[in-house]
Amino acid sequence: MDDYLKSKMRINSESVAGLLISFIREHMEKLERDGVILGLSGGVDSAVIASLCVRAVGAEKTLALIMPERDSDRRNIKDAISFARHNGIDMRLINISPYLETIGAYRLFPFGRISILRKISGRVVRKLYELYTGRTGQTPFSISVRGVKGREFSGIIKRINAYYRLKHRVRMLLLYFYAELENRLVVGCANKTEYMIGYFVRHGCDDAVDIMPLLNLYKTQVIELAGYLSIPDRIIKKPPSPDIIPGITDEIAIGLSYEKLDHILLAIEDGFEDEEIANALQVDDILVLRVRHLTEASEYMRVIYTP
Amino acid sequence: MDDYLKSKMRINSESVAGLLISFIREHMEKLERDGVILGLSGGVDSAVIASLCVRAVGAEKTLALIMPERDSDRRNIKDAISFARHNGIDMRLINISPYLETIGAYRLFPFGRISILRKISGRVVRKLYELYTGRTGQTPFSISVRGVKGREFSGIIKRINAYYRLKHRVRMLLLYFYAELENRLVVGCANKTEYMIGYFVRHGCDDAVDIMPLLNLYKTQVIELAGYLSIPDRIIKKPPSPDIIPGITDEIAIGLSYEKLDHILLAIEDGFEDEEIANALQVDDILVLRVRHLTEASEYMRVIYTP
Repeated sequence: MDDYLKSKMRINSESVAGLLISFIREHMEKLERDGVILGLSGGVDSAVIASLCVRAVGAEKTLALIMPERDSDRRNIKDAISFARHNGIDMRLINISPYLETIGAYRLFPFGRISILRKISGRVVRKLYELYTGRTGQTPFSISVRGVKGREFSGIIKRINAYYRLKHRVRMLLLYFYAELENRLVVGCANKTEYMIGYFVRHGCDDAVDIMPLLNLYKTQVIELAGYLSIPDRIIKKPPSPDIIPGITDEIAIGLSYEKLDHILLAIEDGFEDEEIANALQVDDILVLRVRHLTEASEYMRVIYTP
Repeated sequence: MDDYLKSKMRINSESVAGLLISFIREHMEKLERDGVILGLSGGVDSAVIASLCVRAVGAEKTLALIMPERDSDRRNIKDAISFARHNGIDMRLINISPYLETIGAYRLFPFGRISILRKISGRVVRKLYELYTGRTGQTPFSISVRGVKGREFSGIIKRINAYYRLKHRVRMLLLYFYAELENRLVVGCANKTEYMIGYFVRHGCDDAVDIMPLLNLYKTQVIELAGYLSIPDRIIKKPPSPDIIPGITDEIAIGLSYEKLDHILLAIEDGFEDEEIANALQVDDILVLRVRHLTEASEYMRVIYTP
């Protein structure tokens, strides 16, 4: 099965890129927009989207917003700026800290105001995350995909959720503010992996968009596509991170590497049983079960229920 | 056909209310929340939702946010507050003007800063709206359901869209901020009429929610349900308005009364031809065509496109 999954995961980057480029161009025209807009984070997904947009509608019709805040990794901001410059993309750098301040997010974690505490907070947060996972057998992420009623430490988890999710919603709101001022199409960067397990901020800049070109690609496929599109190695090779809580990379948050995760997701999609998957991929049963649970528990994030 | 539509539009308010009450209760439990939250505007839809929530989960588990801003009609704020008080619903009054100010919305229409200009702006805006509709044969609303590429006066329309849409997105973001801090389910107030013609702010407090109990009810049916739920006459009888642009009621924005609009929508849904509908309802062909166009043009507001 391992070989089967590996071969099924392979993509023809050239034809995929071609398809996505047409997809973006056609939707900009169909929805009668004068250009496109995207949020550029310094990570690989948004770099791929930016690169596809430039090929689809031209750099002169592509606007990138770079929206760092107090907790953002300075290296990501630099990478985003230099990527936009290098590709001739019009960009606007907007520090969203004042908005988060006004709404009251930073008051939830005031220690971050002190720069020396902010520097060490990454290590502290990571340690606490691991302690929690060790104690409860579940990651804070997996617990908070749904509601947290009656959960251990739900007080602090609610605070953390309100804190980081606000950031992506403020980004969404700014993307649309500029999109509407300039009649642009909002292009989202969500990939299939994060969408299927609920690893995104609901109604934030990941899913509250006009079109989602990468939604049929697993994260490892997006990385492959990034190579074809000549995205800088620096961006491709850095550990993926939402960059909204210091110290938390995707792998720590999810508790699994993307390579393993993507294969598990593909195998689940193909109808294999948990035990088969665990044996073939040489992972613990419990990991497969956890991934299956995430895809089910996060269902509500992909739909809005009506009677 | 007129009689047929009228009879089809009739609802059994008691059984509809019962169904929606179970729907809200079940989803709060299924999604593991400790309560529900909604935005209360002083209008009929949100009053109906609040009333259903109280019956479903109890007033003590229902939180209403009242979120006025510079342009809000003071009577709506008062109605919202007294409705919440009368029903024993926990409420928070949050003036969102500072958020809109920080992001730059009010800079788009600075004349509103001066209170005397604000008072007359309703009449001026209404006049301009009518002038536009007379000159172009289309309402600014119908034009801006999609993009506004190459449209007449697109400069001012883009500005207006960015201006009012930001308000509903800020409201959404605050609803979720409090929802996450207190593990609550976000209950939306969108009805079928506004959803089908795209008369809502995409990714705003209407559609960016967890559940949408009223989505299968036309506006006139919601008003009927409001009577059954003993919503105050004051709220039921006032002209429906989004209360985000001074002077603009729903009827002026859409260019049609809800009674006519709902019958046209129902007839379209039932597969009747435009001419039949126009004859039976004694309205102009062009109105039926416009409604049909709205349902089609607004399709993109109800989906997020993927390849």
